[in-house]
Amino acid sequence: MNSELPYQGGSVQWHLGPVIDALRTSRESTHNIRHQGRVRELPSRDVLRQIVDGLSAALFPTHYGRPDLNDESIDYYVADTLNVALDRLVEQVRRALRFSPAAPSELTGADAQREDLVLAERARAITREFAARLPALRALLVSDVQAALAGDPAATSVAEIMLCYPGTIAILYHRIAHCLTRLGVPFLARVVADIGHSLTGIDIHPGAQIGGSFFIDHGTGVVIGETAILGERVRLYQAVTLGAKRFPVDDSGALVKGIARHPIVEDDVVIYAGATILGRITIGAGSTIGGNVWLTQSVPPGSNVSQAQMRNT
Amino acid sequence: MNSELPYQGGSVQWHLGPVIDALRTSRESTHNIRHQGRVRELPSRDVLRQIVDGLSAALFPTHYGRPDLNDESIDYYVADTLNVALDRLVEQVRRALRFSPAAPSELTGADAQREDLVLAERARAITREFAARLPALRALLVSDVQAALAGDPAATSVAEIMLCYPGTIAILYHRIAHCLTRLGVPFLARVVADIGHSLTGIDIHPGAQIGGSFFIDHGTGVVIGETAILGERVRLYQAVTLGAKRFPVDDSGALVKGIARHPIVEDDVVIYAGATILGRITIGAGSTIGGNVWLTQSVPPGSNVSQAQMRNT
Amino acid sequence: MNSELPYQGGSVQWHLGPVIDALRTSRESTHNIRHQGRVRELPSRDVLRQIVDGLSAALFPTHYGRPDLNDESIDYYVADTLNVALDRLVEQVRRALRFSPAAPSELTGADAQREDLVLAERARAITREFAARLPALRALLVSDVQAALAGDPAATSVAEIMLCYPGTIAILYHRIAHCLTRLGVPFLARVVADIGHSLTGIDIHPGAQIGGSFFIDHGTGVVIGETAILGERVRLYQAVTLGAKRFPVDDSGALVKGIARHPIVEDDVVIYAGATILGRITIGAGSTIGGNVWLTQSVPPGSNVSQAQMRNT
Amino acid sequence: MNSELPYQGGSVQWHLGPVIDALRTSRESTHNIRHQGRVRELPSRDVLRQIVDGLSAALFPTHYGRPDLNDESIDYYVADTLNVALDRLVEQVRRALRFSPAAPSELTGADAQREDLVLAERARAITREFAARLPALRALLVSDVQAALAGDPAATSVAEIMLCYPGTIAILYHRIAHCLTRLGVPFLARVVADIGHSLTGIDIHPGAQIGGSFFIDHGTGVVIGETAILGERVRLYQAVTLGAKRFPVDDSGALVKGIARHPIVEDDVVIYAGATILGRITIGAGSTIGGNVWLTQSVPPGSNVSQAQMRNT
Amino acid sequence: MNSELPYQGGSVQWHLGPVIDALRTSRESTHNIRHQGRVRELPSRDVLRQIVDGLSAALFPTHYGRPDLNDESIDYYVADTLNVALDRLVEQVRRALRFSPAAPSELTGADAQREDLVLAERARAITREFAARLPALRALLVSDVQAALAGDPAATSVAEIMLCYPGTIAILYHRIAHCLTRLGVPFLARVVADIGHSLTGIDIHPGAQIGGSFFIDHGTGVVIGETAILGERVRLYQAVTLGAKRFPVDDSGALVKGIARHPIVEDDVVIYAGATILGRITIGAGSTIGGNVWLTQSVPPGSNVSQAQMRNT
Amino acid sequence: MNSELPYQGGSVQWHLGPVIDALRTSRESTHNIRHQGRVRELPSRDVLRQIVDGLSAALFPTHYGRPDLNDESIDYYVADTLNVALDRLVEQVRRALRFSPAAPSELTGADAQREDLVLAERARAITREFAARLPALRALLVSDVQAALAGDPAATSVAEIMLCYPGTIAILYHRIAHCLTRLGVPFLARVVADIGHSLTGIDIHPGAQIGGSFFIDHGTGVVIGETAILGERVRLYQAVTLGAKRFPVDDSGALVKGIARHPIVEDDVVIYAGATILGRITIGAGSTIGGNVWLTQSVPPGSNVSQAQMRNT
Repeated sequence: MNSELPYQGGSVQWHLGPVIDALRTSRESTHNIRHQGRVRELPSRDVLRQIVDGLSAALFPTHYGRPDLNDESIDYYVADTLNVALDRLVEQVRRALRFSPAAPSELTGADAQREDLVLAERARAITREFAARLPALRALLVSDVQAALAGDPAATSVAEIMLCYPGTIAILYHRIAHCLTRLGVPFLARVVADIGHSLTGIDIHPGAQIGGSFFIDHGTGVVIGETAILGERVRLYQAVTLGAKRFPVDDSGALVKGIARHPIVEDDVVIYAGATILGRITIGAGSTIGGNVWLTQSVPPGSNVSQAQMRNT
Repeated sequence: MNSELPYQGGSVQWHLGPVIDALRTSRESTHNIRHQGRVRELPSRDVLRQIVDGLSAALFPTHYGRPDLNDESIDYYVADTLNVALDRLVEQVRRALRFSPAAPSELTGADAQREDLVLAERARAITREFAARLPALRALLVSDVQAALAGDPAATSVAEIMLCYPGTIAILYHRIAHCLTRLGVPFLARVVADIGHSLTGIDIHPGAQIGGSFFIDHGTGVVIGETAILGERVRLYQAVTLGAKRFPVDDSGALVKGIARHPIVEDDVVIYAGATILGRITIGAGSTIGGNVWLTQSVPPGSNVSQAQMRNT
Repeated sequence: MNSELPYQGGSVQWHLGPVIDALRTSRESTHNIRHQGRVRELPSRDVLRQIVDGLSAALFPTHYGRPDLNDESIDYYVADTLNVALDRLVEQVRRALRFSPAAPSELTGADAQREDLVLAERARAITREFAARLPALRALLVSDVQAALAGDPAATSVAEIMLCYPGTIAILYHRIAHCLTRLGVPFLARVVADIGHSLTGIDIHPGAQIGGSFFIDHGTGVVIGETAILGERVRLYQAVTLGAKRFPVDDSGALVKGIARHPIVEDDVVIYAGATILGRITIGAGSTIGGNVWLTQSVPPGSNVSQAQMRNT
Repeated sequence: MNSELPYQGGSVQWHLGPVIDALRTSRESTHNIRHQGRVRELPSRDVLRQIVDGLSAALFPTHYGRPDLNDESIDYYVADTLNVALDRLVEQVRRALRFSPAAPSELTGADAQREDLVLAERARAITREFAARLPALRALLVSDVQAALAGDPAATSVAEIMLCYPGTIAILYHRIAHCLTRLGVPFLARVVADIGHSLTGIDIHPGAQIGGSFFIDHGTGVVIGETAILGERVRLYQAVTLGAKRFPVDDSGALVKGIARHPIVEDDVVIYAGATILGRITIGAGSTIGGNVWLTQSVPPGSNVSQAQMRNT
Repeated sequence: MNSELPYQGGSVQWHLGPVIDALRTSRESTHNIRHQGRVRELPSRDVLRQIVDGLSAALFPTHYGRPDLNDESIDYYVADTLNVALDRLVEQVRRALRFSPAAPSELTGADAQREDLVLAERARAITREFAARLPALRALLVSDVQAALAGDPAATSVAEIMLCYPGTIAILYHRIAHCLTRLGVPFLARVVADIGHSLTGIDIHPGAQIGGSFFIDHGTGVVIGETAILGERVRLYQAVTLGAKRFPVDDSGALVKGIARHPIVEDDVVIYAGATILGRITIGAGSTIGGNVWLTQSVPPGSNVSQAQMRNT
Repeated sequence: MNSELPYQGGSVQWHLGPVIDALRTSRESTHNIRHQGRVRELPSRDVLRQIVDGLSAALFPTHYGRPDLNDESIDYYVADTLNVALDRLVEQVRRALRFSPAAPSELTGADAQREDLVLAERARAITREFAARLPALRALLVSDVQAALAGDPAATSVAEIMLCYPGTIAILYHRIAHCLTRLGVPFLARVVADIGHSLTGIDIHPGAQIGGSFFIDHGTGVVIGETAILGERVRLYQAVTLGAKRFPVDDSGALVKGIARHPIVEDDVVIYAGATILGRITIGAGSTIGGNVWLTQSVPPGSNVSQAQMRNT
């Protein structure tokens, strides 16, 4: 009877032929990323993660770079780290530009080759401009860190805010991603933003415009939509949504993309945990929105909106 | 006085003896994963992560595999990548089967050995069937991606949805995990699901049944319970809960496990951010559930449920 | 015309000079982590991740360590793994102590050197005491796992709870971080806690005091504040907030830090998904707080608080 | 004319079909490592390298292990390191046994399965015996290191000999490989020996029998054949060959394998650089063989053999 | 006095300014690898090592690839592995072509760009031809392995020869390097050859022409020069040199490069350890050259050359 | 009978207790690297390998560093790379100094601590001086590369010599190691030299003094002893030994260490493959020593020494 044991001495044969065939058929019947036989390489999440790490280290070398830097070595380190990050970034920008709607993809032969060179040059120009904006970007981030130190009774030092606050990381990723959007590579910005989202649970669309001294506490579950505009010194808590209320469709029933549909939050607004604010409304300067509030209409400056209290049952 | 300085030239002696003893005592007084001296190896999260990466690459080679594949090389790549992933999977399935309640664990000697061979063969059969289902699984995922493109005004391309939407990743992990549950390895499915949860903040129990063209936007905080059933073209936003309302206990006070206790969501339902839907209720086809709504009773098809508005105070 | 193509044969010159200069100016005008020219190395997230992995493996060798351990090898493994983890920890503790407010930083020459030796000895003493507390810490964690097994109808085995529940990981990180806070290295504890937060979406301040048999289901979005106190057998679901209601400021308008401002949750309380409980209030023993409830006042033992039902519109 | 440029937008198609076919044909016409469809996994060089590293660390923990070990931690470290190394070794031994001439390979079904279990048990027994011999092996290695310290005027410390002498590494690999040969896994021993050869340029067949206090200086190019026998306190310099003189063939013209064909070198012999000693001859105790000498006849104890001097031309 | 201790609290300042300046001056006064500001990237040793590993695995999948391949999976594996190796190779070939003397390097603008495209196409053509020659290359290697099995009394199996003989590795690297030389990328071939040299201590110039069934035993120290020609079934032992005798100079005293200056070794010759054979001489078919022989004149077929015996002194 | 199968369900128990005990006994009876309970950490081969890689990249950034450096980025790269390499080196120097005979090791308490600070400062001073010597070291290496280009008819470019000649690597390691010897860390120099030996098969003692424009062709088996002195423009081939002839012993029979015992090779000498030159003799300037020559007496300038020819037998 032993011979009936399901023994199999060799490695397993999976008989993949039909599976391979079916997968090919499935691929060929759906959208793929080839245009006229020309492959479009996708940006790489891993490389973008390295790029943001490099930029962070160049911006804040003692916190995110090497701890043993001194006055002599720090500029060398910053410059070399930036060089590496920008060299990597230019290739990712080039890849992303191939996916921009403006990129003509039906070209062939010499025209296609010429287009490639044009895209490569545009990628270099964008990256060069990105580098030039880094000092301003750093100034914004410094204001954000100071806002955290001022706004959280549990915060004890700048180092703690740099190392232990997911909000700090989320804003860092956002400010980089927003800069890339402005420079004309929104697809790349989206990948950067999603890496930040994955690390922190905070989901900020790179299109959102956010003023200085921005602070998010705890942060998990925060969502800020593409066309939201936030002023200076805004403070958010976990699970706050600044979202769209409805999605207009055109005559054919397709979504109309790109119209302003998220809130405007003016200076010095505080929004507590779980509040949901939807639509192109305006939260007036200095307002306080209570936890779990559901808000779809504008409120004037200085408003104080809160949810009714629950009671025992 | 210098000699009083707390200097210690050698490495630190931690005097671990009592700690080691206490830890052993603690281990031995609690559940462990040995049965009759036979170790049961746990499935490996790291390996499962690699397996899902491999399956993703085989299903969508140009997005999750290698960008430079062409018509000649793509099938070789898919087949070899699948082979590696399946060879790894069969070992993880085998391990998980050892933890299934049905696995007799008191066997010894030749019986134990025979049982091992039976489990190994079952692992191979399950993996073979899993491979056969991949084309159907891919078709579902393609419908999900198309639903995202159609449903989000911020989405601009398939590539963006594949690379930048945590919902895409969450659904990919879920469809693989659900398939493993169906094939009889629920423990393995749970580990796969939790990896997806950790990557995205979206928590879908592998037992949940979800139709095609499923779209989750933003996603952080979404929870879908074990016995939930979702129809075609369902759309969810962040922080939606499809949960259980209460947990019946048996006469001895222990939880009754496995009974249907999560919502049924019919076709074409949209549920906005933060809505909490609890219990074995039915959301009728085509309904819209507003943000932050708390719902514990069934609603008929075409319903439109929303929360009362908050006001200034 | 070909000669007008934007071709560039060499590598890209980024002209970083002005950027480097501007970044230096920015750095020098803001806080940095040098004191009197003495660098303070920051704790390393990567190393702390390894340390927690090592401690986990030493505490639960068959689940988080090596699967093939047997009665002979397990103590060797535990002891060697602990040794490595503690050797690494002592260095991180030493770094963190440099950031404690008590650390005098204006010392120079021999005084600075003597201070360094004192900190190194304190780091060793703290680490030694940490090691001594590990058996008690393990006992708490065992009670937590058992609470999960008893409290979740979807849970089928201890192995599943150890491998597939983010709540298990979050509590593991918290209990380690809380122990470090107690031992006088709150900054290090914060870094540990934030790693746990990043892995699970569950944000527990290391200062929070949490009794045994604690269970968090699903977990994403849970926030527990610094001065919260939780009794025995508390159960939480996703997106529960135990937060502060308001932040008192002193005469100068600066936040008053460190005062008790988060809830006390007594034994055997269950708090369902999305509930927000704010301020130094007390939830009496045995109470049940319903999903999405907003609560800012104490409730007596045995209370049952729930949100009003929404209706069709 | 631009259109004549050899531009190719997509990735390269290698047209591998015929190459793949030809390689398959070539494989199938030659020896392969399958027996009756049962794959025989080869030992892994990478894993064997790790095993030798682990054994070295267990034998000499402060030189090849971790520098910060102390009296408390060192035994834990040695034991855990040994456990890992032996667990890995047993699998490599099992693989090698499949290649031993004695391994019946035509078995199928239950017989094949039973044979596998027998080989696994033999692998365990061999590894257990190997572990038992480690203390004696260490004693030999200690005598070798002391011989180096005594024999090289450039050597200044034990640490230097452990870290900077390729001879030390070569002898370490040899003593392990020879032990494996003795225990019945000559194929595995050969792989170990070849790793040592690759690291040091010293080629010692694992079958060679070498007494204690053995010292090789410089070492590159040393070759010691399979049936060589070396006594105590032998010293060799670079490029010394202890080889075979001729290879007898049997009636069919095939090499006769396994007969004694390499030199016997008695105690206290010194052989200088480049000497070539061939055949089953005996170098008497206490002899000195000069550099570049070519020797194919036995010499009595106390001999002093040297090459004639070259002169100007 | 303590204050006189050489204590330094911060990190070390190396005062690199003058060193950096001096290194720049040194660089600028010597050859560098820029032409007209256009960088020429060097081939990468690490990538070439991966390429040879990939080719080895494709040629001998069960020995150098994955042990668990079966009749179904092996061709997929071979094809995918080859694809990856060839994709990598084409880039290395392109880099190497930039260093060929024929590569015009003074081009600028559109001409430089056009030249780059021409080189890229040539790299693809060379790589395609290289792939086509792989089956013939495999056949040669199989003959080499069989020669080893037949020629070494210590060899017991094909597996042992594939895994444990440095000669096998050296010939594998040589046959690949020689093929690359033939195809017009001698610089790349040299890098491949030097990797093989570093791994084995066997130094074969890629220009050397070597017939089938070639066997090198032990091998360390073997040197075979650029213009050497070896027939079928040649056997070499360690430290054999097939070198040049003298290096003619031209009128200006510069070396004349490229002329035939190394030995021709006809079929079935055996050359024992340490023999040195120099100059464009011919070793007639079937000859045996003894160990340590120094030979600078041709010998007829069937010769038997040996060194005079040394004697006791 | 099945029950007699050697089946073992759990992991293997190695019964290591007696082995561990025996190894401890063996350790305690032999030399170890503790002094008075104070561990002396050994230099790390891996770190030294990284340091030499960093130094190589700083010295020759386009060949051993990054290929895409340009006039702007190259100095940043060199400076940052040097900073990292020197920071690592200072720690290795400090470790090595603990092993120098001059290091007092019986100190305890405050004296031991003060000694540690003194050693740390000495390590910094040595490393600072090492950095200052790098430009001169580079100049020597440039002369060596030029000598290779001039001296080998097979060499076609500087890039080939930098990438494909083991001699280049061996000299690079030697010049670094020799510099470390001069600066007072001979033990560290030995480790560096042995890494170079392992990579190339060329064994140069770091004490050897070697003039500029030094060229080693092929190189495997070259040995150059501690007190050898080589002039300018010396050229060596493979397997050349510049060794000691005899080792004087003192009255007690112990080796006398450190006396001059290796050859002096004057300017413009060429030594062909396999020549063995032993003892404190002088090879006069411009001499040529033939292959395989055995030489133990000085020869005047312009000598031409060769071996007698072998003949057919």
